[in-house]
Amino acid sequence: MPTEIPESHRDLLEKKGFAHIATIGPKGEPQTQPVWYSWDGTNLLFSNTRGRQKFRNLSKDPRVAVSITDPDNPYRYLEIRGRATIEDDSDKVLIQDLGHKYTGQDYPSPPEEQRVIIRIAPEHVTHMG
Amino acid sequence: MPTEIPESHRDLLEKKGFAHIATIGPKGEPQTQPVWYSWDGTNLLFSNTRGRQKFRNLSKDPRVAVSITDPDNPYRYLEIRGRATIEDDSDKVLIQDLGHKYTGQDYPSPPEEQRVIIRIAPEHVTHMG
Repeated sequence: MPTEIPESHRDLLEKKGFAHIATIGPKGEPQTQPVWYSWDGTNLLFSNTRGRQKFRNLSKDPRVAVSITDPDNPYRYLEIRGRATIEDDSDKVLIQDLGHKYTGQDYPSPPEEQRVIIRIAPEHVTHMG
Repeated sequence: MPTEIPESHRDLLEKKGFAHIATIGPKGEPQTQPVWYSWDGTNLLFSNTRGRQKFRNLSKDPRVAVSITDPDNPYRYLEIRGRATIEDDSDKVLIQDLGHKYTGQDYPSPPEEQRVIIRIAPEHVTHMG
């Protein structure tokens, strides 16, 4: 299965649409939410906090599927599947990068908020449009 | 858990955004794709075809999660979880309804295409924005 993002769809990785991230819940059921994302050249990056359901899901089962539609043309999309690795974002670097990308401003993360970086290296990529 | 769509977000059910539908794949992994949808007053409706992975996934494990963002404001969204029931769409009623909703035109479904109706009665609803 392809693990490369096709050249034709790389622009989606830089856009400000939302990524719909599907994880496996406590009973093996699917869960999904729209999230901010960025791309570091190799991995999709999401911010999350310890204590949220998505964090708990990915800590237990790292398998994840993400669909990203082009905000300018929803008939263009990418689906990326892979495994999440999670790292503390103690300095809140990623959440600030995302805040700047999406809002142009600092993200108001309270000091007690334990942010993490979720990294997904694509293992399976499909695209359309 | 709430199973009602909140009044504040019912407009999303009529909009022409995409629903990101998360299902469980053959190895218990999440899969997700954007799809057309409609709402019959009680259930979310999707069209699919026999033979597609999503059809196979839902035939094996009917649990599904759907996230729908407002195309006019992606910070408003609904997540709906439930179980899919599947019925043949021999007369291609749903795919034509969806074609008309999204494109204003008939959907070019070839005669040999075996369309099905996927119905999801919400069992768990969350919303934001």
